[in-house]
Formats: sequence, structure tokens, C-alpha cells
Amino acid sequence: MTHEEFFDYSAFAAPVAPDEEIVFAAIGLAHGHIYGICHGLLRAGAKLAFVYDSDPALVARFVKEFPDVTVAKSEEDILQNPAVRLVASADIPARRAPLGVRVMQAGKDFLSDKASCTTLSQLEDIKTACAQTGQKFITYFGESVDSESMTFIYDRLSRGMLGRVNSVIISAPHVLNAPSRPAWFFTREDQGGVLIDIGSHQVHQFLKLTGNTTATVTAARVSNLRYPQYAEFDEVGDMMLTGENGAVGFLHISWDFPLGLGTWGDPRLIIEAEKGYIELRKNVNIGVDKTGEHVFVVTEDGTFHESVQGKIGSSFFHRVLWDVVHRTDTALPLEETITTMELCIKAQLRAMEENA
Amino acid sequence: MTHEEFFDYSAFAAPVAPDEEIVFAAIGLAHGHIYGICHGLLRAGAKLAFVYDSDPALVARFVKEFPDVTVAKSEEDILQNPAVRLVASADIPARRAPLGVRVMQAGKDFLSDKASCTTLSQLEDIKTACAQTGQKFITYFGESVDSESMTFIYDRLSRGMLGRVNSVIISAPHVLNAPSRPAWFFTREDQGGVLIDIGSHQVHQFLKLTGNTTATVTAARVSNLRYPQYAEFDEVGDMMLTGENGAVGFLHISWDFPLGLGTWGDPRLIIEAEKGYIELRKNVNIGVDKTGEHVFVVTEDGTFHESVQGKIGSSFFHRVLWDVVHRTDTALPLEETITTMELCIKAQLRAMEENA
Repeated sequence: MTHEEFFDYSAFAAPVAPDEEIVFAAIGLAHGHIYGICHGLLRAGAKLAFVYDSDPALVARFVKEFPDVTVAKSEEDILQNPAVRLVASADIPARRAPLGVRVMQAGKDFLSDKASCTTLSQLEDIKTACAQTGQKFITYFGESVDSESMTFIYDRLSRGMLGRVNSVIISAPHVLNAPSRPAWFFTREDQGGVLIDIGSHQVHQFLKLTGNTTATVTAARVSNLRYPQYAEFDEVGDMMLTGENGAVGFLHISWDFPLGLGTWGDPRLIIEAEKGYIELRKNVNIGVDKTGEHVFVVTEDGTFHESVQGKIGSSFFHRVLWDVVHRTDTALPLEETITTMELCIKAQLRAMEENA
Repeated sequence: MTHEEFFDYSAFAAPVAPDEEIVFAAIGLAHGHIYGICHGLLRAGAKLAFVYDSDPALVARFVKEFPDVTVAKSEEDILQNPAVRLVASADIPARRAPLGVRVMQAGKDFLSDKASCTTLSQLEDIKTACAQTGQKFITYFGESVDSESMTFIYDRLSRGMLGRVNSVIISAPHVLNAPSRPAWFFTREDQGGVLIDIGSHQVHQFLKLTGNTTATVTAARVSNLRYPQYAEFDEVGDMMLTGENGAVGFLHISWDFPLGLGTWGDPRLIIEAEKGYIELRKNVNIGVDKTGEHVFVVTEDGTFHESVQGKIGSSFFHRVLWDVVHRTDTALPLEETITTMELCIKAQLRAMEENA
């Protein structure tokens, strides 16, 4: 395989939005991810009609970013409005699933930031509500589904270009910047824990990269050495997964990345496949420059490297709209939410048990 | 902290050898590491007098590299020779500890390639023989004790330049090149298993980096997806460690690195410290060039990067000779062999139990 054969972008056509204009609303603005989600839906051709959050400060900031939006008086106002077909949310994690259930029961589809639930009982509620209503509950695992380097690698692997994946290591250090975080971020009941909050991204990546529909949590550990003032906070979270097909995974998330990089973190993946070794530097090429989406590949034929930034594009939100119109599951099938969230909730519970 | 303050090499003076010339012998040439060990001792000023191995082909190759050496008729000839004060070995791993015990009982010191034993019972024999004879049993954990970037980082951390270390991730993919490996390499009884053979390097690094004298094996896993023809071989080995002081570690070793890099592997360390994030690319800067010993550091003040190759030097073998003469423990104290080997043997046993 040559460099040109591997870094061939012809498969990544511009994404296609459905013909119909989908009207959507934003409910629950606690996490800033709501901005990326709304911008993504707007770029894909949807119309942002309404917003609601019980915190007026969050609403005021949102209106500044999206001046055309109408501020609803209540969640109920939005749920009652038949024009709204989709509700997007980045509410406090523990509130996302209950909101999603209410949204689906009102006959609308729901797009949630990850983590889209924080307990196994919420996960059961999601399953039940989906079955009863026929509505969509879609989770935005952004680092997995809306990253150009991940999209690129999923595509290369799905074509068999590097054979099956044996091992995935993900290191995801994040900048904490504690004063910038709201109180709920440090409360386990609200936030869920690091293996749920951030781990859900990584579990989804492990499953997709290795071609597993499920896996076993081989080990899980959370710890907090540096922030004793936040007793319920996980500074570091680790998880070992073993896929049904024998592929192995290790995920490491930490909140101790220094500010000196000038960006939110330095997530890395090391992927060992049968016919190639892959490294992704998703957000930054540390020590070189601030470009991201770097793909390094070693095969029997040599070592290749490119940043795929700007070469792949983003199709996730187009696919969400497509699914809303055509009742398909092209963006993120419910099964992937279920398997991913179940594994990371079980891992979090196990890690907390071992610390107890 | 500035780049210049961090990358200040003035602490790394040329190593000092003892005044006396130490005569040493090589017994057990099964692993090519014996060449690096003998060259290291020669550079430090020792005299290579004798060699012995039961395999004449290994001896013939050795004599080609070191034409001044005398081929001994037997191991016993060397052990009986009072001029020999040190025996170096890279025998088949399972034979290293028994040989070391015989060497020490003959009143000589012993320098073993890692892994220096393969069972807990051998480890007990080492302890007993050291206590009874007062001789030295020193393990050459090369990737830890004889790597310029590791030596540099141990020094920076010991000066408190980055605060305490919270987390260490080591990924160590290796090229297998199966046809080049001897039969013993694929036999568990001889080789020990991947978490012992290669894991011992990494466990030693974890303990030294985090300042722990001991740790708990939180999880251990070995697997072999690609080489069913080698039933006792571990293609991949993973280990999670938790240090006494709460620092966390993950070690990943694999034998599936492609040949296209043109080198034996791409070992990486990601070290999260209180005041800095460190990445080491020890053997190669993948996608850039084939230089190694790269140190990347992110602090609150910025991101710094240098290759320290050729700037630190190697002092391990000088320290071995110093210890032989002065009966000190400057190279690798017995306690470090004991703790390191105990952890990796326990991890290997646990991983094999879970597969049983």
C-alpha cells in the first residue's frame, strides 16, 4: 500500500441533507457542547426555532449566539408544539435521559450530548420509551462520530485496508480549569463520574474500531489525588475492555492537563491492527503546531503521515436529520447508545466499588 | 519554567569508572542483549576475559564480535577462576536466576539481562543466595536504566521540577519477526511470558517514575490473536498497576508492530505529573525521522520539546563496576530487582489464570 492509496479522500463526498426542513429546539444548556450541536444541525439545514432552560443566564448567552431563536416559556411549550420534530440537549448529564423520555413521549426525536444517561435504570427508561413511542434517541459521542480523523480511520478499517484491530489504547488528558466549571460538574449524582462522562466517547470508539457489538469490562479504576476539595470528583479514570472478538482496549481519561498547551487536551489513540499500526493525534500535534486530526500509519511498506483536518468534513448532523425524516438509523443507532452507556456505567460502578 | 531551565544538561557529567580493572566473563548468550551488555562493560573500562555457552554457534558469533575473548571449556572453568569478579548473562530467561545463584556461590557478582527470573521460587533463590554470599545480583532493565530520555526524566522528576507523578501509560509495540526468534522464545517455561520478559522493563519504569517501592497489580491480561501456531506465546500483554502512593499505571506490550518502520518498535510513555505532562518517544519519532530519546513537556508555561539523544550518555555499566569494587548499590539495588520481578511474575500468573 502506498501513501496515496491510504490517504485517498475520494470516498468522503459532501454530506446530503434531507429535502425537508426540520424544525428543532434546544432544551438544557448546562454544557457548552449545546453550541456545537446546534451549529452542526444548522449547518446541516435544520431550523432552530426554540430554546428553553430553567437558568436565565444560560438562555441569555444562548440567545446571543443564536439571535433568531424564540425563548420558550417552558419545556412544556416546546413539547406541545407540533412544528418541533427534534429536541437537542446538553443538560446536566443526569437530566438528559429523563428529558429524552419526555421528548419522545411528546412524539419528537431526541439528540443528546454524551453521556446521555448516568444510571442503568435511566438506560432501561430510554429503551422502554423508544420501544413505546418509535421515536429516536440519538447520542452525540462527539469524539467518535464527529472527528475527521476517526471518521477517516473507521472508513479505512471498514474497507479492510489494515485488517482486523487487535488493540486500542486511548489516552485522553483534559484541562480542568476548575473555576470555569459549574457546581454540577463536581457532583457525582449530576455528572455521573469520569468513566461515564468522558469514558462514553472512548468506549464507543473502542467498539467501533474493533468491530465489536459488546465487550467485557476487564478492569476499571477512578482516582483523585490532586483535588481533595472535590470529594465526588474523579481526576483520573482508567478502564480495560475485552471485546467479544478478543480485541483488547485500554482507556485513560484525566483532568490534569496543564494550561500551557493552549487547548483543551491532547487525546491520542494507538491502534494495533493486523496489517498496520495507527496513531491518531486528534486535537494537537504537541511540540509541532496546533493542528489536529493527525493520522500516522506504519505498515509493512513504510510510515505515512497526514493531517486529515478539513479533508473529511462532518456528516453526523446531516445523518441525524436524515434519520428524523426517513426513520432510518444512520447517525447513531439506539443499540450503540445502549451498549456504550451500559459498559461505561458498569465500569464506573465497578471502579467506585473498588474504592469503597 | 523556561525551555532552557528544563533542558539543562549540566547535571549529566561523564560517568566515573573505578580505578581497578574488573575482569568479567559472559555465560549464556541466548539473547542478543549480551552484546549491548558486554560493549557497555568494556566502554566502562572492564576486561572481557572469558565466554561460555553450551551452543557452539552462539559462541562462534560472540568470538567474531569480541576476538580477544578466551572460550572457556565449561561454565565451571569460569566459576573456578579467581580472576573473574563479574559474570554477565543473557541466557534463556528461565536459566538466568539459577546461573546467577551458581555465580554468586562461586564468589562472583552477577549481571543479568532482564527478565532476570521467571518464577517466584527463583526470586526466593536469588534473595537467599545474595544474603548468604554477600554477592551482587544486578538486573539490566535496559529501557529503564540505560535510556537517555528515561535517565533525563528520572533526574528532572527527582529534582521536583514537575511535582509528583499521578499517572504513567507505557505503550511498547515490538516487531516480532518470528523466523528470527529461537524456539525458546515461544516456550512459556523458557521465556516466562510477555508481562515478565518485556513487562519487567515497564514495571521498573512505573515504580521509578512514581516514586513507589511497591505497587498492586490491579489487572493483567495476555492474549494472542494472530499467532495460533505459537500456543504458549503472548502476542499482547496489558497490566494496570496502582502504586502505594496512589499513582496509577498502565503498561501495554505487543508483538505486532509492522516491519515498515525499519526499527524494533515504538515505545512511548505518557507521564502525567502535578506540574507537567510528559511524553517520551524513546526509539523513533514516527512520521518525522528515526531519531529517538524525544522528550515533550507541557507545563503551565508552554510546550517544550527536544531529543536528548547524545546529551545524557550512559552511566549504568560504570555504576555496575563501581558497585563491584566498592560493594555499593548504585546501579540497580537488589530491592528493585525483587519488587519489579515479583510484580511482573504475579501479573503474568494472574493473566494466565484469567485465560485458563
